[in-house]
Amino acid sequence: MAEILYGAPVADAIRERSKKESEALGREGVRPCLALVRIGDRADTASYAAGLKKNAPKSGVLIRSIGLPEDTSAEEAARLLEDLNSDPAVHGILLLLPLPAGLDADALRNRIAPEKDVDGATDLSQAGVFEGKDLGFAPATPRAVMEILHYYRIPVAGKRAVVIGRSPVVGRPLAMMLLRENATVTVCHSRTADLAAAVRDAEIVIAALGKPEAVGAGILGKDQILVDVGIHRKEDGTLCGDADRAQAELSVRALTPVPGGVGAVTTAVLLQNVLEAASRQLKYRREG
Amino acid sequence: MAEILYGAPVADAIRERSKKESEALGREGVRPCLALVRIGDRADTASYAAGLKKNAPKSGVLIRSIGLPEDTSAEEAARLLEDLNSDPAVHGILLLLPLPAGLDADALRNRIAPEKDVDGATDLSQAGVFEGKDLGFAPATPRAVMEILHYYRIPVAGKRAVVIGRSPVVGRPLAMMLLRENATVTVCHSRTADLAAAVRDAEIVIAALGKPEAVGAGILGKDQILVDVGIHRKEDGTLCGDADRAQAELSVRALTPVPGGVGAVTTAVLLQNVLEAASRQLKYRREG
Repeated sequence: MAEILYGAPVADAIRERSKKESEALGREGVRPCLALVRIGDRADTASYAAGLKKNAPKSGVLIRSIGLPEDTSAEEAARLLEDLNSDPAVHGILLLLPLPAGLDADALRNRIAPEKDVDGATDLSQAGVFEGKDLGFAPATPRAVMEILHYYRIPVAGKRAVVIGRSPVVGRPLAMMLLRENATVTVCHSRTADLAAAVRDAEIVIAALGKPEAVGAGILGKDQILVDVGIHRKEDGTLCGDADRAQAELSVRALTPVPGGVGAVTTAVLLQNVLEAASRQLKYRREG
Repeated sequence: MAEILYGAPVADAIRERSKKESEALGREGVRPCLALVRIGDRADTASYAAGLKKNAPKSGVLIRSIGLPEDTSAEEAARLLEDLNSDPAVHGILLLLPLPAGLDADALRNRIAPEKDVDGATDLSQAGVFEGKDLGFAPATPRAVMEILHYYRIPVAGKRAVVIGRSPVVGRPLAMMLLRENATVTVCHSRTADLAAAVRDAEIVIAALGKPEAVGAGILGKDQILVDVGIHRKEDGTLCGDADRAQAELSVRALTPVPGGVGAVTTAVLLQNVLEAASRQLKYRREG
């Protein structure tokens, strides 16, 4: 049976680091603060916001929760973001998606100042991931995957990694991060002709295609590490990932569970980014 | 023997398209113009500038050549770029690299307005390549590779493509472009453990590692298309690519020569971007 790579100890380690950084910043008079902007009243953004609020104290981050009504105009939303950009008490800004139908998410998320873009939502943060430079921040989910690999001391350099999925928020940035750490990276997707052949020789497999239980026994091999980024609710109400866990457990060497794997680490990474943002902003103010 | 995929007919086809677009813009009173900024007096930038000036009329592009002395300050260089950004008669800006030692190329190239960044030099252009959006422009060399594949009707969708090299100006953007056209893409590099194994099953191989004649018979397979992005001068004065051409010709199905392959197309692509920039700017002015 495969080893299970739980997210909880990874998240705990990140939170412990965050808490210490928060205390150090506190001694400098800084209270690291994340502005959580929610427009409209969707259940999924409410549940994500609640999760963040619950976890924030463990990382030493203050949450400033801002709710705007469903009928907020693009101008009002932009003005709010500008205000938060120029507010020195706010170190990170998270605009919860999806937005109500009338608002252009792409235009709006790019209003966030790069130095406060702790979820890597702006084009400049994306450029940073792509170019391997610290412009803004890397998106939290792919960073959570890297944190899991590091925590469990899974070698990346010189290894063959296959990323199944090419979304701009997970697959592509993750491919860049793996490449930056010297993996040989293959990106597969819905148009890949022979997925099994592409995955066969990989040492690390990332399932990020966004389809429930799509990665199964026919594709996986026995010496592989499988990281499952998907999360879906099945008809019977239980949660599952992009991999078929029962089959995967019999096939691979180690895997992350769903729930309790990547998802458990993402929030901790996002909050850690707020600490990093607060530190950078303090340094920047000091150096003028 | 392998078929040779020459760059010249590809470049001719692009230039013909450009010329027509230039004439159409001319009827609207627009003369597409590229500002060519050269700081200092290096032989390589001089030769590149001369090549562009020679080719520009064939694409219907006017070149405004600007030479600044070796001891130009960062402020002076930035001011020039700002002036060109706001000059409505200039549609594209190319800052020739490398710059003199005292100047920060990374900071300076990002001063170019995204809508005039015809060589994809800014972070925002890079973000566009990465996210698959039209922010700024894609860099000319990887686009030249795609133009060659299209011209010779080499299928990309669903094919396995291996990019050898992960530079921010060629390897990584090319991987993104191939992915956008639905190839299954693997990026290899100096830390790849078994290059031959990674390349073996690929249908398209891009040699972009920047090492003379490094890709040879042991790596290539008989049904492959090889695109060689490298260009190097050998001790005997002749030019060579990243692939060993003699070996490659015996191994693969088709290949681009060096010289006369990708390099012959790059300038045409860059000049085509000037036309595209001029069109976008005209449209933008009209729509207010």
